[in-house]
Amino acid sequence: MEFMTGERETQVSTLREIFEEQPLGKEVAVEGAVHSIRDMGRIVFVTVRTRDGLLQTVFEKEEHPEFSGLKEAMCLRVQGRLRQEARAPRGLEIALEGLEILSAPAAPLPLPIDKWKLNTSLEARLNQRALALRHPRERAIFRIQEGIVRAFRDFLWEQGFTEVHTPKVGARSAEGGANLFRLSYFHKPAVLQQSPQLYKQMLVGVFDRVFETGPVFRAEKHNTKRHLNEYTSLDFEMGYIRSFRDVMEMETGFLRHMMEFLAQEYYQELKLLGVELPSVEQIPAVPFRQAKELVAKKYGRAVRSPQDLEPEEEQLIGEYFKEEYGSDFVFVTHYPSGKRPFYAMEDPEDPTVTLSFDLLFRGLEVTTGGQRIHEYGKLIEKMEARGMTEEGLEEYLDAFRYGMPPHGGLGIGLERMTMQLLGEENIREASLFPRDLSRLKP
Amino acid sequence: MEFMTGERETQVSTLREIFEEQPLGKEVAVEGAVHSIRDMGRIVFVTVRTRDGLLQTVFEKEEHPEFSGLKEAMCLRVQGRLRQEARAPRGLEIALEGLEILSAPAAPLPLPIDKWKLNTSLEARLNQRALALRHPRERAIFRIQEGIVRAFRDFLWEQGFTEVHTPKVGARSAEGGANLFRLSYFHKPAVLQQSPQLYKQMLVGVFDRVFETGPVFRAEKHNTKRHLNEYTSLDFEMGYIRSFRDVMEMETGFLRHMMEFLAQEYYQELKLLGVELPSVEQIPAVPFRQAKELVAKKYGRAVRSPQDLEPEEEQLIGEYFKEEYGSDFVFVTHYPSGKRPFYAMEDPEDPTVTLSFDLLFRGLEVTTGGQRIHEYGKLIEKMEARGMTEEGLEEYLDAFRYGMPPHGGLGIGLERMTMQLLGEENIREASLFPRDLSRLKP
Repeated sequence: MEFMTGERETQVSTLREIFEEQPLGKEVAVEGAVHSIRDMGRIVFVTVRTRDGLLQTVFEKEEHPEFSGLKEAMCLRVQGRLRQEARAPRGLEIALEGLEILSAPAAPLPLPIDKWKLNTSLEARLNQRALALRHPRERAIFRIQEGIVRAFRDFLWEQGFTEVHTPKVGARSAEGGANLFRLSYFHKPAVLQQSPQLYKQMLVGVFDRVFETGPVFRAEKHNTKRHLNEYTSLDFEMGYIRSFRDVMEMETGFLRHMMEFLAQEYYQELKLLGVELPSVEQIPAVPFRQAKELVAKKYGRAVRSPQDLEPEEEQLIGEYFKEEYGSDFVFVTHYPSGKRPFYAMEDPEDPTVTLSFDLLFRGLEVTTGGQRIHEYGKLIEKMEARGMTEEGLEEYLDAFRYGMPPHGGLGIGLERMTMQLLGEENIREASLFPRDLSRLKP
Repeated sequence: MEFMTGERETQVSTLREIFEEQPLGKEVAVEGAVHSIRDMGRIVFVTVRTRDGLLQTVFEKEEHPEFSGLKEAMCLRVQGRLRQEARAPRGLEIALEGLEILSAPAAPLPLPIDKWKLNTSLEARLNQRALALRHPRERAIFRIQEGIVRAFRDFLWEQGFTEVHTPKVGARSAEGGANLFRLSYFHKPAVLQQSPQLYKQMLVGVFDRVFETGPVFRAEKHNTKRHLNEYTSLDFEMGYIRSFRDVMEMETGFLRHMMEFLAQEYYQELKLLGVELPSVEQIPAVPFRQAKELVAKKYGRAVRSPQDLEPEEEQLIGEYFKEEYGSDFVFVTHYPSGKRPFYAMEDPEDPTVTLSFDLLFRGLEVTTGGQRIHEYGKLIEKMEARGMTEEGLEEYLDAFRYGMPPHGGLGIGLERMTMQLLGEENIREASLFPRDLSRLKP
């Protein structure tokens, strides 16, 4: 009988080990793909792309004629001695002594993965996504995206939240608007969830504080640089709040933690992309109406739609708070009631607005949140005032009937957060396999 | 202008703080729901349910007539002095001095949340899910489930994996079988992904090692105790493997880490549920055919379907390895080629079987994995032999055309793992909001 013990001896080093330990003169082995080949006549440089970066290797043609068949995109296991080389990236290279070809491509690469920048159109990169992502700069985007999610979870665990997994397929409810994808679920009509909202609220009654990081689906017919039809939402909901400010403070705490965590754990990727992290000492919070007035006044702009922020207005609010307060972030609070969902709590001092907020990051909404109605009677009242039926909301309403603490929460669009942090122009740059009006594959 | 700093002063203690620091005689404040009320005549015990457990509080009626209106499921903020009380759970209680009612239920609870066990049918508990989950034992299941996911991610990050988010809606491909949910995506036919398989393989070419924890959708018409139509899959895929054993070793490493992590971080919940964690020193691995023969011989059972393991056979294999080797886990390897997907790598020594495995945990399959074909030519050959077209697999095949390392991976069913670990009889017990043939809500 064979047994697995979980202990795997490996003779192969990671780049992190090599650059940290610098075992000069020692033989090391590395696995990776041939990223680029530079034939200098007598000697040949082969850059190997591993999961944690690029490593220069080198051999002399005369000494190793058997290495002559190397091609870009081959997967290799190489051995050699580590030595200092000032002209090599990060000052180290491997003088190749042995080499095993693990696999070879069937055709030459159609994208210049080995160039410093992939100067191809976004369209071309999305069509060849699995290949384009191999470029170190493309790959770095998603390493940093991973860091955002890790920071989110780590911070919330530290704050006593429980992670949950709620279903993405569900019965249609009175809440759902027109922006739902519909499907047939064993001959019953069903929809894809546009948010875990109702589930995370129900679960506040169970765990007090919950979060989820998962996909959400919006059948919106927007074809813009900032909309996706499927994206990853970072959601949390917390009970026993004293005010909707508690939710904004929690998000501010997360953002501070996120910046520290990225600076510490993802500095290689940030450096590669030339990203400077914004400082998040404090985030200004401005009421919706005041925000509109401030930018109308400063930028000489007429207030056209008093109930909404137009994209251009969001951008100007972002600029205003950058110029006046040096902040890349701003909370816009107290959105008009008519524009918020039925569960949003109205401001007792002015019921035309809600105890809600959006977070703008460099002029783009990256979060929507607020306090929710927690009293059963008030929820029913609000639904009636909106002409909503209880259909499909029975269990949600039950949670309130049997007691819920005051609570609030938010949802952060992961791709938007990534896009703004990295200064990308199009949200599709921040999605591994974007889904938009026309793109359903790869 | 108001500013958020992320620093929130709170006067409220968590139970963890109270039980660790034991500030006897000091005034403490706690927030939570009224879990149970025991009126003893002169004094009243009010157990408060907080996010990290139950706490006994007590008051004298004569001293505090203003506390008399307390009801089950009210949400409270209470203050009082902490004191030792041998008969209280964990030996501490709060003598109530102040109390603020944050919310009150609109109706009495229809489920006995305050009882030691919720002696109601699974059906009743699922119909009132948001309420049933408030029971400490129900809640503990999902706290432990959180721990499994955390352990999975933590272990894989430590091993150099990158976390990815792949789309759940996609174009239909030649791979998909009959078990796909179909939907219309802006007038184009689309499906819900039954696994992130093809995406994680493409991403091995990018990050070498990737994992994802997310929902998968199977339109299987099974109505059993171990099938869900939407579940959470813990998937990983790793490049540069030498053998499919590397994948099994990685999973064994994860399981060892998981048990340690749960024992350390979720001991309260394990204790509450009376769960003893299995030991995972080593896991036996037995080839499919041999496994069938072993149980046929030991339990006098005829081998009926030579290409498949019947559920009863899985259970007997589990029993066999528990009895003979004391192991709760067993890898069954080398499944017949015909029963594995097109991307499964055949054993060069016997092409009728694949370099694949299932992991059985107490007689139930909780993982399917194996080595994948990484050579473009072989993949095309296999597809042709199966009569498959390349439709919808163009980008997947491109990843191979342009070079892929040898790789393999697996998918773990989170709810099955939770169910087996906790000794639950029905997988619905291990899903917050299960989706089955008849259940689409809540």
